[in-house]
Amino acid sequence: MTNKLYDTSLSLLTDLYQVTMAYGYWKTKTSEKEAVFNLYFRRNPFNGGFTIACGLANVIGYINNFGFSKKDLRYLRTLTGHDGDPLFEEAFIDYLGDLKLTCDIEAIPEGTVVFPNEPLVRVRGPILQCQLLETPLLNLINFESLIATKAARLRLVAEKDTLLEFGLRRAQGVDGGMTASRAAYIGGCDATSNVLAGKLYDIPVRGTHAHSWVMSFDDEQQAFDAYADALPNNVTLLVDTYDSLQGVQHAIETGRKLVQRGYRLAGIRLDSGDLAYLSIEARKLLDAAGFQDTSIVASNDLDETIINSLRQQGAKINVWGVGTKLVTAFDQPALGGVYKLAALRHELPAGQTPNGKAPHWEYKMKLSEQAIKTSTPGIQQVRRFRDERGFLADMIYDLESMGSQDGKTTTMIDPLDFTKRRRFEATQDYEDLLVSVFQAGKCVYSLPDIHAVRERVQTQLANLHPGVKRFVNPHTYPVGLEKGLHELKTKLILTLREGQTQV
Amino acid sequence: MTNKLYDTSLSLLTDLYQVTMAYGYWKTKTSEKEAVFNLYFRRNPFNGGFTIACGLANVIGYINNFGFSKKDLRYLRTLTGHDGDPLFEEAFIDYLGDLKLTCDIEAIPEGTVVFPNEPLVRVRGPILQCQLLETPLLNLINFESLIATKAARLRLVAEKDTLLEFGLRRAQGVDGGMTASRAAYIGGCDATSNVLAGKLYDIPVRGTHAHSWVMSFDDEQQAFDAYADALPNNVTLLVDTYDSLQGVQHAIETGRKLVQRGYRLAGIRLDSGDLAYLSIEARKLLDAAGFQDTSIVASNDLDETIINSLRQQGAKINVWGVGTKLVTAFDQPALGGVYKLAALRHELPAGQTPNGKAPHWEYKMKLSEQAIKTSTPGIQQVRRFRDERGFLADMIYDLESMGSQDGKTTTMIDPLDFTKRRRFEATQDYEDLLVSVFQAGKCVYSLPDIHAVRERVQTQLANLHPGVKRFVNPHTYPVGLEKGLHELKTKLILTLREGQTQV
Repeated sequence: MTNKLYDTSLSLLTDLYQVTMAYGYWKTKTSEKEAVFNLYFRRNPFNGGFTIACGLANVIGYINNFGFSKKDLRYLRTLTGHDGDPLFEEAFIDYLGDLKLTCDIEAIPEGTVVFPNEPLVRVRGPILQCQLLETPLLNLINFESLIATKAARLRLVAEKDTLLEFGLRRAQGVDGGMTASRAAYIGGCDATSNVLAGKLYDIPVRGTHAHSWVMSFDDEQQAFDAYADALPNNVTLLVDTYDSLQGVQHAIETGRKLVQRGYRLAGIRLDSGDLAYLSIEARKLLDAAGFQDTSIVASNDLDETIINSLRQQGAKINVWGVGTKLVTAFDQPALGGVYKLAALRHELPAGQTPNGKAPHWEYKMKLSEQAIKTSTPGIQQVRRFRDERGFLADMIYDLESMGSQDGKTTTMIDPLDFTKRRRFEATQDYEDLLVSVFQAGKCVYSLPDIHAVRERVQTQLANLHPGVKRFVNPHTYPVGLEKGLHELKTKLILTLREGQTQV
Repeated sequence: MTNKLYDTSLSLLTDLYQVTMAYGYWKTKTSEKEAVFNLYFRRNPFNGGFTIACGLANVIGYINNFGFSKKDLRYLRTLTGHDGDPLFEEAFIDYLGDLKLTCDIEAIPEGTVVFPNEPLVRVRGPILQCQLLETPLLNLINFESLIATKAARLRLVAEKDTLLEFGLRRAQGVDGGMTASRAAYIGGCDATSNVLAGKLYDIPVRGTHAHSWVMSFDDEQQAFDAYADALPNNVTLLVDTYDSLQGVQHAIETGRKLVQRGYRLAGIRLDSGDLAYLSIEARKLLDAAGFQDTSIVASNDLDETIINSLRQQGAKINVWGVGTKLVTAFDQPALGGVYKLAALRHELPAGQTPNGKAPHWEYKMKLSEQAIKTSTPGIQQVRRFRDERGFLADMIYDLESMGSQDGKTTTMIDPLDFTKRRRFEATQDYEDLLVSVFQAGKCVYSLPDIHAVRERVQTQLANLHPGVKRFVNPHTYPVGLEKGLHELKTKLILTLREGQTQV
């Protein structure tokens, strides 16, 4: 991993069926068939209108370190089938031991707003290799995109207020905390409480004291004074250990002594009770005592809905500490990303091509009774049309069949309703979203630093229509299939359905 | 960590406020004050009646590897307050560099059923050290206990059926997947799809093939035959790529060839559609073709509610693959464990004691307007009373004040209603749940292997009244405070409340 968090080889961080399929490809001598897989999700999380792509940095770290260790191979040798015989032949274990990834990978950069059905990552290479990457790619992209999206939603409601991520203690494991801190910062948080994330990811860290500090002294005033003596340039006092407004009075007392010493009372923190009422009363007390610049920090199971409500109630809070609800994406703790085979071609003996031409791609898709679960075939790219007001629409197209357009206009078709179409002139401004990340297994992408990714999120969101960013019944941002791809998909569905009835 | 998953020092895996408080204790020369902290949760997850304690193995690994590296210290030196000056003095950084943990830690063994307010872990030692451990202990215990509990619930509904954990691709990060696989196995799953978890934790792994295998062949029959040729001792065929019942026919065809070769068709897997209907029809087809021993595996966003419903509908499924809903604990993705200061005493100069006696403990608690959020003071142990039918009740008691009992009977009092009491004779069979894990920073606990922990869960659950294991409005298992502790707590609350009104 880029962050060097992991010691062990992570190449076995995959589902066993990827390895048994790899073995199957190897046994049937089809392991080198060139395949294309697209990684995409079907619905925006949190009933929202957009998603933030995130996780590519960890994907790059994972792939750069790919390779089965001797211990990995020894473990694979121990696996048996239901008759007790080994699952894998020794020659296959040797093959894995020598395996180097040679895939081409294209991906949408971290911090980009993305929508359902768009390939966030496209992997092209020997089918055996593509298959082994499925599980780790989904694990890494699903979670970080989920948390970056949650943080972006929090940023939308917090506007210019400060947003702190405090979630480590309730996160889903060590990495659940570490990865969440990274993605939360990218999505729009200003800092984290997680010191290791600060160290490894260059994220600002913040923190002062807990209830236990106050409880360890004979009284609150003594505890506040002692803290201010020890860390005079980092004084935000937690006031609710015994009684919040009494705590504010004690904080003011400590603040006065700080001012005499040339320091300032940076903030007070409310962690329980009626945050609207308490913050308004605390603000009055602080202002009356001359502490107009002292921040009021609030925490206690906050999420975008509660922050929005508190702001509407006129709560005088300007720093929001968000923990559990952010780092676990509490109201929807998983993004349902999938990774689907979209095209395949057989490897021919060197120099041999059918009719002297390059072998044709065979387009692939998974049928389903539900249209939303039917995958889209093709070697996909996403074209985002834009004008001076912002993003207009995204068109998913197939690199091979794009030539069917007349060159003057491009038509895109709604994937769930083919009667809904949009046409763009050739002069329309656009950007193709997927960029090259690996070529023949070598990384060719230069990762932007985390602060640039974080800024990209805000620039991207600024280009989205407010209706798409709305939380309640957001407007659906238009994403369509390029006409050629739509026709290809339709034809393939009809062929497959015909195949069904024949049997 | 025990599993060697992590490369970097994890001592900074904590909230910054733990470090600033540590600095505060050091500056005020109170860092060696002996403190007691209890880690507990306030409500069973999933509206259930019980929780499974899990995560201690990772806690032991964490503490055994505790220590700030040179890089950690270098990072801490870079941290500044709001005036740009360093947060910490150099001498404190040196202190951290030399710090060795010397705490005593007691804990309830993994795999034990536990209830709200019971200390899962008790840490006793210099307050500075106790404080630094808060965040990592919560992170590790909260998540694993949550997932082990979810898996135990799944096991309750699956009864004797096979339960597989398939969640890695939707887990919250790498460790979200790894830790979930471990806890899910402990809670009652039979195997995981996660190969790395299999290797590192000695968990059985399972897996066969995905839709992409089928799609990579010209037709399904060819794909099934090729898979069975490659891995004849591991044939469970996924039948829903195009049409599930047609897929069953193809699987039967492949199964016939397998039988001729001396192998068997282990199973078919349904991954979409109406699982009740499809499994009943598939069972008929399989039985009619002589494949009575072939399992029917089902997957597709399953959880305990859906499995329960499918079983009630007579679905012919005997292997359940559970992913997202298990590894993210989808309906409640965090356990709200907390870690509260419960007692404190001042370190006296060597040899000096007040009145020649050991210094008294000062009992500590956090008040709250909500009774459920008020912590309980004391150096707590949990006594579980039992008879031949199973567990009767748990009593939280304070090691120091237990002497107040008359020796013939023990009275426990409901923490939320002091009029509800229970009395146990001195002859009543019991077990004290917390065992010694670290003494003066040295591990004195011998970890049972993961299979023994998994068995412990089932033995523990067998001792719980069925009403407590019910999902809808479960019976509340009785947990009370020992009378002496109840009185101590009441007195302390009254003193603290009096303190409030005085100011």
